[in-house]
Amino acid sequence: MTTLAGRGSSPTLDEVAELAGVSRATVSRVVNGSPKVRPEARRAVEAAVAQLHYVPNPMARSLVTRRTDTIALVLSESNAQVFSDPFFARVFRELSESLADTEMNLVLLAARGEREQEKVGRFVRQGHVDGVVLVSPHRDDTLPRMLDEAGVPLVLSGRPPDGRDLCYVDADNTGGARTATEHLLGSGRRRVATVTGPQDMIAGLDRHAGYREALEAAGLPVDERLVAEGDFTEAGGARAMAALLERAPDLDAVFVASDPMAVGALRALREAGRTVPGDVAVVGFDDAAVAATCDPPLTTVAQPLEDMTRLMKELLLSQVEGQEGVRARVCPTRLVRRASA
Amino acid sequence: MTTLAGRGSSPTLDEVAELAGVSRATVSRVVNGSPKVRPEARRAVEAAVAQLHYVPNPMARSLVTRRTDTIALVLSESNAQVFSDPFFARVFRELSESLADTEMNLVLLAARGEREQEKVGRFVRQGHVDGVVLVSPHRDDTLPRMLDEAGVPLVLSGRPPDGRDLCYVDADNTGGARTATEHLLGSGRRRVATVTGPQDMIAGLDRHAGYREALEAAGLPVDERLVAEGDFTEAGGARAMAALLERAPDLDAVFVASDPMAVGALRALREAGRTVPGDVAVVGFDDAAVAATCDPPLTTVAQPLEDMTRLMKELLLSQVEGQEGVRARVCPTRLVRRASA
Repeated sequence: MTTLAGRGSSPTLDEVAELAGVSRATVSRVVNGSPKVRPEARRAVEAAVAQLHYVPNPMARSLVTRRTDTIALVLSESNAQVFSDPFFARVFRELSESLADTEMNLVLLAARGEREQEKVGRFVRQGHVDGVVLVSPHRDDTLPRMLDEAGVPLVLSGRPPDGRDLCYVDADNTGGARTATEHLLGSGRRRVATVTGPQDMIAGLDRHAGYREALEAAGLPVDERLVAEGDFTEAGGARAMAALLERAPDLDAVFVASDPMAVGALRALREAGRTVPGDVAVVGFDDAAVAATCDPPLTTVAQPLEDMTRLMKELLLSQVEGQEGVRARVCPTRLVRRASA
Repeated sequence: MTTLAGRGSSPTLDEVAELAGVSRATVSRVVNGSPKVRPEARRAVEAAVAQLHYVPNPMARSLVTRRTDTIALVLSESNAQVFSDPFFARVFRELSESLADTEMNLVLLAARGEREQEKVGRFVRQGHVDGVVLVSPHRDDTLPRMLDEAGVPLVLSGRPPDGRDLCYVDADNTGGARTATEHLLGSGRRRVATVTGPQDMIAGLDRHAGYREALEAAGLPVDERLVAEGDFTEAGGARAMAALLERAPDLDAVFVASDPMAVGALRALREAGRTVPGDVAVVGFDDAAVAATCDPPLTTVAQPLEDMTRLMKELLLSQVEGQEGVRARVCPTRLVRRASA
């Protein structure tokens, strides 16, 4: 049973056994954490392992413990978008940092579309990671079902789009969007538009729903000319904003369902000669770094990403350890007021 | 030998054997690619595998083939920097796209500092990936030596900082920096400064060397007041530029060793009231997306990243397949002229 490590100068199980003066089977039991080993034998093996810098054959060990001490962060987006989206970057960073003081590794995979999800699913089911945090799930994703049915520990960032009973951590997207829209209405705006996120994603649907709830609560009709769908990118936000200005030139406010899209919307408004917040008040969603530095600084809805990431990690690790526990957590959002509304 | 996949409803080897009407051993031989199988038995097994959507026990398979069909892209940077650096983003995207039509997965890991490199090294040596592309190596990195000694297929993006005989793909950093500096000198500038990259990285050292070579070839002395070290980030570029203006206010040009740093330098120059290219001509390095959109658009040195990434993949896969071949490739760079110089 040669492994990658074994091709180099790594010591073998036999060498450890010889140095410790015990049998191969005893070394194997110690390495695999079996309790059926005499204390003195255990100490001898541990000393030999330390002296030889022995790395246990991981495949053999995994067959016994099934643990790899690695979790996967899978982004259900195309490769092009993964690095440009500040939300992914923050989740990756937070999750990485929360594992920095542990022995666990974090690996990142991008998978959008059936073929890529199929490949990633195979890697995960082959046991190379202990569990998966899946970010940005879309309604047509095949990965959640595949991993769930294979019994792989899984936490979604965002409520499962297909209503499946999976473990997830989400922000209160509906509540946050309602608050944002109420803020615009409360400052006297009456033609409040929205640039929604993709309508095959829960974050897109829920933020859209919150906008509608706020209008209805204020006794205002929802005018479909004031609703345009974006794709959570800056370019998409600019396009949607331009479309809104074209078909509803009298709009006086806009709730944009993500900060990258809001930056695009600000650009489209500037190009159309509208001032912000004078002519059009703008509220975003995310409180990404860019919200504080764009012109004008963006009023936006903050998600408690640090808490959310910590919860994802905790829910995942308790599944990995075989514990049944909380299946869903929804975290509150809050409005961060800056100059744009 | 239960695996993650086995916990769910996945079919077993026995079920495949039963459906195919052959022994377990025959199924195992087919699955593991053994040639010692009769053609009709092979066809029966393949049909049963397809019908049952059987996924071979990967641990058992890996013990035989040692293949995971996955390669790791390891970035030797902190998590914070990984997502903000356009160079990493492009390498990840190019590598991902070049694997999209294959059955191979790409996983990304970030590891800076001894402890993180130790963890990543363990994951790799445990055989969860077939090989590693290591980007952005620093002189004190422990990972290249560790993987090399363990016999793990490895390609570095950039010449090994410690001179070790490892497989790598690099851009002609020295030549590119020399061309950039010659361009500034050729337009009549005489006080040409440089913001270097980190001097514990080959890209930082080589681009610095190219700057000095161009000055020497032009018969100009190197004035150390005109040299400031940056860290390849925008903020670091702004800081280094401000320091240069402080101690050499008569500078009339600057070669900045990366585009993110050049964007920071442009900001520092603007804040100091200097016009670009009027007062100070600026050349960057990378031809990142931002080079075309910043103000003024940046003259810069382009690396053929698509070719480089393809070469990294090819050199890695030939190692994975046990072939000895080319160990190093250095790709030419070219000057892209825009408004800043």
